[in-house]
Amino acid sequence: MLLRMIIDCHGHYTTAPSPLGAYRDMQVAALVGDPAHVGERGSITISDAELIDSLEANQLRLQRERNIDLTLFSPRASWMGHHIGNEHTSRFWTEHCNDLIRRVCDLFPDNFAPVCQLPQSPDVGVESSVRELRRCVDEMDFVGCNLNPDPSGGMWNGPPLFDPAWRPLYETMCELDVPAMIHVSAACNPHFHSTGSHYLGADTTAFMQALTSGLFRDFPEMRWVIPHGGGAVPYHWGRFKGMAEENVGAGWPLLDELMANIWFDTCVYHQPGIDLLVEVVPTSNILFASEMVGAVKGTNPDTGEHYDDTKLYVDRAPLTDDQRLDIFERNVQRVYPRLKVPA
Amino acid sequence: MLLRMIIDCHGHYTTAPSPLGAYRDMQVAALVGDPAHVGERGSITISDAELIDSLEANQLRLQRERNIDLTLFSPRASWMGHHIGNEHTSRFWTEHCNDLIRRVCDLFPDNFAPVCQLPQSPDVGVESSVRELRRCVDEMDFVGCNLNPDPSGGMWNGPPLFDPAWRPLYETMCELDVPAMIHVSAACNPHFHSTGSHYLGADTTAFMQALTSGLFRDFPEMRWVIPHGGGAVPYHWGRFKGMAEENVGAGWPLLDELMANIWFDTCVYHQPGIDLLVEVVPTSNILFASEMVGAVKGTNPDTGEHYDDTKLYVDRAPLTDDQRLDIFERNVQRVYPRLKVPA
Repeated sequence: MLLRMIIDCHGHYTTAPSPLGAYRDMQVAALVGDPAHVGERGSITISDAELIDSLEANQLRLQRERNIDLTLFSPRASWMGHHIGNEHTSRFWTEHCNDLIRRVCDLFPDNFAPVCQLPQSPDVGVESSVRELRRCVDEMDFVGCNLNPDPSGGMWNGPPLFDPAWRPLYETMCELDVPAMIHVSAACNPHFHSTGSHYLGADTTAFMQALTSGLFRDFPEMRWVIPHGGGAVPYHWGRFKGMAEENVGAGWPLLDELMANIWFDTCVYHQPGIDLLVEVVPTSNILFASEMVGAVKGTNPDTGEHYDDTKLYVDRAPLTDDQRLDIFERNVQRVYPRLKVPA
Repeated sequence: MLLRMIIDCHGHYTTAPSPLGAYRDMQVAALVGDPAHVGERGSITISDAELIDSLEANQLRLQRERNIDLTLFSPRASWMGHHIGNEHTSRFWTEHCNDLIRRVCDLFPDNFAPVCQLPQSPDVGVESSVRELRRCVDEMDFVGCNLNPDPSGGMWNGPPLFDPAWRPLYETMCELDVPAMIHVSAACNPHFHSTGSHYLGADTTAFMQALTSGLFRDFPEMRWVIPHGGGAVPYHWGRFKGMAEENVGAGWPLLDELMANIWFDTCVYHQPGIDLLVEVVPTSNILFASEMVGAVKGTNPDTGEHYDDTKLYVDRAPLTDDQRLDIFERNVQRVYPRLKVPA
């Protein structure tokens, strides 16, 4: 079984040129004193050369160093900031971010495939997210989206994922045959550290919302990727398995049933974590990912290796060649069928 | 090295006789239409025979079956319900719950040692918790407390653990030389499943609040036990280690420094989880626990063993005799120095 290519399902454009951040600062400034400010979409001027520079020095360099062929690339997750401003703020910001991802993928079609953020906003329905998802998939060949289960930014006061409010978005995902990575953005609640406790807590929360609600019975074709190795779920696999078995009478699916619709990525930054992940979760449910350039950029002084060089851990994990092929290359194409793998 | 006894640091009185629940129902009923209702402490009538029955059939039977000698025993965590009612509600309820734990320990001094809940309440300072902690430790020989990092029940809108509001409680813990297990109660936020996502998310959140704040530099003698195997922390040990190293300049402690004050328990309900825990976390920072009778009561159909029979996993984990002695018996006596181990 020959490994043809390594596909990373979870990369963010965390290194975008400064005009993107300047645009966001302008948006935020305009909201001071007028939270309902509408404004205009406006424009952001970034040259191709600037885009290329921002990628060559970072994601492209790391892809080459680590032998990663292709990255599913989406806007910076911590900057989605769905809690900032109103639906107009979120719409203009999201359109710019997604357009930039499209440009990146046009510049480097062999290295990146586009995944969009959605213009979610607290207290606003999903209609605008449905529209943007259609625009990205139908008009710009995006292959998936990132869905924020808590657009409040850590206040957790909107509808849970099993609430009917989400259904139009789920229906559109199924119709377009694109999955969602369930990924929160930065927390504005002082209890939570964004990439520490908020990301991992949200991953576990999303899994549990699916488990307790049996949501996927209504959307048997819907696919979710839960990032960061599934939050706390694999480490507590016995807890979730036991809870599911105890609650079959209450309508919960068993984990075997639930995992027909859920995948975990490999953004777990040490060998024992990856070893546990591949031991307890079926390898057909694991997608290779590194989140680079992401939450942890440093080198582990104990090993001299980058924490987020997750390929090393997967290479060393006790897997058959066939399982490794699933994790690096095949599963992601099943989950993201619109992904066109370069020849 | 002879293992003298097995001490479980995390057991809750989840099987208390029905008059306890009836009292709580009465409290809740009195709050309908009058959230500021004060009422009276009142009384709860439960005979010794009822207490004995409730324990013999459950915790005592399981202790015998699993060769657990002694359990640090506290009121049912999901029933602490600090978000219910006001400070009076919480005070009366907590006093009754703690008094009941004292009675249990008097009836079975060789089997149980008392750990108290605190009368926390949203928007109320920690003074009443300080008073109850003093009452329990000074007058009733309690050896530790459970501290709820989110008395709002999943709204996460009170002060984080690094907020100065908590300091009088921390000072009292240090003065009395008792640790706190950082343990939330039931969630009233529909996003969170209490024993699934809320417990594990809160564990990770508490760890991160300590890491980002350097809180223990002000309280070098304070000791926290983070239950449920430390939430998501050990599974993502590389992530937290890398984050700490990246943020030394911002004043974060390294994990080695932080772990001078934090312990994880072994409430992880499958072998791979325990294997990971003992591989990545120093065994001097691990306390044996089963949480029984707790979140998962069933038998794993794949093994025929109870999910929460965590002693089996620790017995089988790759540990030296000396490390096992630390986890089962010695560490807990260091963390809870007021614990009197029966001869």
